[in-house]
Amino acid sequence: MTNLIEYEDANEEVRAVYDDIRATRQTEYINNFWKALANHPPTLRRTWENLKEIMAGPGEIDPLTRELIYIAVSVTNGCDYCIASHSAAARNKGMTEQMFGELMAITGAANMTNRFANGYKIPVDEIFKQ
Amino acid sequence: MTNLIEYEDANEEVRAVYDDIRATRQTEYINNFWKALANHPPTLRRTWENLKEIMAGPGEIDPLTRELIYIAVSVTNGCDYCIASHSAAARNKGMTEQMFGELMAITGAANMTNRFANGYKIPVDEIFKQ
Amino acid sequence: MTNLIEYEDANEEVRAVYDDIRATRQTEYINNFWKALANHPPTLRRTWENLKEIMAGPGEIDPLTRELIYIAVSVTNGCDYCIASHSAAARNKGMTEQMFGELMAITGAANMTNRFANGYKIPVDEIFKQ
Amino acid sequence: MTNLIEYEDANEEVRAVYDDIRATRQTEYINNFWKALANHPPTLRRTWENLKEIMAGPGEIDPLTRELIYIAVSVTNGCDYCIASHSAAARNKGMTEQMFGELMAITGAANMTNRFANGYKIPVDEIFKQ
Amino acid sequence: MTNLIEYEDANEEVRAVYDDIRATRQTEYINNFWKALANHPPTLRRTWENLKEIMAGPGEIDPLTRELIYIAVSVTNGCDYCIASHSAAARNKGMTEQMFGELMAITGAANMTNRFANGYKIPVDEIFKQ
Amino acid sequence: MTNLIEYEDANEEVRAVYDDIRATRQTEYINNFWKALANHPPTLRRTWENLKEIMAGPGEIDPLTRELIYIAVSVTNGCDYCIASHSAAARNKGMTEQMFGELMAITGAANMTNRFANGYKIPVDEIFKQ
Repeated sequence: MTNLIEYEDANEEVRAVYDDIRATRQTEYINNFWKALANHPPTLRRTWENLKEIMAGPGEIDPLTRELIYIAVSVTNGCDYCIASHSAAARNKGMTEQMFGELMAITGAANMTNRFANGYKIPVDEIFKQ
Repeated sequence: MTNLIEYEDANEEVRAVYDDIRATRQTEYINNFWKALANHPPTLRRTWENLKEIMAGPGEIDPLTRELIYIAVSVTNGCDYCIASHSAAARNKGMTEQMFGELMAITGAANMTNRFANGYKIPVDEIFKQ
Repeated sequence: MTNLIEYEDANEEVRAVYDDIRATRQTEYINNFWKALANHPPTLRRTWENLKEIMAGPGEIDPLTRELIYIAVSVTNGCDYCIASHSAAARNKGMTEQMFGELMAITGAANMTNRFANGYKIPVDEIFKQ
Repeated sequence: MTNLIEYEDANEEVRAVYDDIRATRQTEYINNFWKALANHPPTLRRTWENLKEIMAGPGEIDPLTRELIYIAVSVTNGCDYCIASHSAAARNKGMTEQMFGELMAITGAANMTNRFANGYKIPVDEIFKQ
Repeated sequence: MTNLIEYEDANEEVRAVYDDIRATRQTEYINNFWKALANHPPTLRRTWENLKEIMAGPGEIDPLTRELIYIAVSVTNGCDYCIASHSAAARNKGMTEQMFGELMAITGAANMTNRFANGYKIPVDEIFKQ
Repeated sequence: MTNLIEYEDANEEVRAVYDDIRATRQTEYINNFWKALANHPPTLRRTWENLKEIMAGPGEIDPLTRELIYIAVSVTNGCDYCIASHSAAARNKGMTEQMFGELMAITGAANMTNRFANGYKIPVDEIFKQ
């Protein structure tokens, strides 16, 4: 199993990211994803900066919808960790069980129709080309 | 290329679906996806009934968000037809270019972090298990 | 675009494979897949030997069913060339349009339910563990 | 972990599906897949109706072959639950260990050649365009 | 088709990235990938900064090997644009046709064996757990 | 769980492969992958012959780089067994933790940019078409 880097064992670069995660999320808890990425500090730093901006920065898509999109991708790719962590995040932002059920229905249907489009080699309608 | 079934050449079962598509969407236009699926009428019928309910039926997730989720899956799978048709649908429901850019950023980031979770074999935190 | 190696321009190793393809399939036609793989003769040789044994050798799964399985994978992965070439092979072995429609229905449904299993994190039933 | 809805705790809509599963399959056992989907009754209902028709309804592809196709997709997507449940179903319908081995060989080979077609950017032969 | 943003039509943020791409790569040419991402300037900026560091920054993996890894992923996902652009980059860094052939062989084989591991549900050997 | 075939229980064809694995790798240990494939001897034989040639035969790509490519694909597909076994192989051939971190960064970035290329429908630059 991947070594999970605790704050006590982390170097300066990693601690700076952990500090920012704690300040941004207003919690002491650092989840395993970041402790695993800390094995390669540049990847930890880049990933946190990217996600912080993409998932929590200003934008036209509201924070809950961002989580739903994230889950849809993670479910499509079958990433257990990402489904678990972002489902928790989504619930914190207001996702109900009913919404999760609808999200699964849409995600499943898109995965099905994607294959119909592949198999039937369906040409894109002119009106969809912009 | 797949034969696209026009209304004139369609049997009763297919025509009934085409009629319902037109009535539901309030447009005469039947896009190629349905004309291709009409080669196997039961698949046409089932798919339309499913999508009508999932994408346009009552629910807690608003119609625009449903399209964003759909696009995220289609982009993850690389389905050109689905990206084109549902991007058009999303624009009709209010997706701006800014929102599309944010959608791509989230979708790309999720695909990236999904692989970090795989590669680092990150164990799911206890607090994420519910 | 990838250089397609014609018989005239091929080395001995490649010609030997082309000759065997022609003898096995009883046709002069070498399709582009093999002409592309001929850019790396060992890959051409290995792939032909593998596919010849897997798709045309003795076995309990009949040749048409083998093609249906092949198409299901190719549709899931969105490989246009493979869908086109193996749909042609399947039609030569008796696949009807009706069967293709059923194949798409099964392939699409499996891609949908695969995601439900992911998203709902469904534990495998004891009776399915053997 | 996802809550698994037992018959005793299910509402009318869910019970009707469970009853139909039992009648159709002639067994009292409801597997976890359905108990998980029951968290969102419309998804349970739609999925069961779809699968019942696709996997068990009339058609030109025999029931065992349908399961083999289903497994090929699930193996390609890496869905553990689906591989386990449909391998059990396939064995019930006559799949031997030898057939499973051949199925894996075909599924693996298709996943390999799909990538050769991608990487070599192989143009589709005119004779495969219909 | 996506609008490709030319330097003349770009805002300050986009121009700064284009300038850095030109300085870093020592060429005037900006390829379409960046012109498309420029529709959402934050995604352009983040992506360029990430890739510049990951693909061209200091590290223990040499630049050509980085491109081979990139191509392997793009071939697995079937991303035509990425295969084309990174194959060109790899050739510039010394990839021969022979190496490309070997790369395809490895990529194809990994995609095949990944499915054997899925299908046979192979338990990880204790010696591989570290 | 899949039955793992031990040497003592294997037939002649399987034993010949096991003997060759041991001789080639200069170790008595046969890992679970081969013991699982031994359930279908032809798949065991073909897969071993392919991998032996592709991963250990002569070629322009060095053995460690081959493993990095293999891992990149396995991480993209989310194959736990393959990630574990080939990470061990790569470490034996000299992969450092730093290199693994860089490998994850490249693999993650490629998976992200693949989706940007899909979503923005980016046309391939003329200079990338060879």
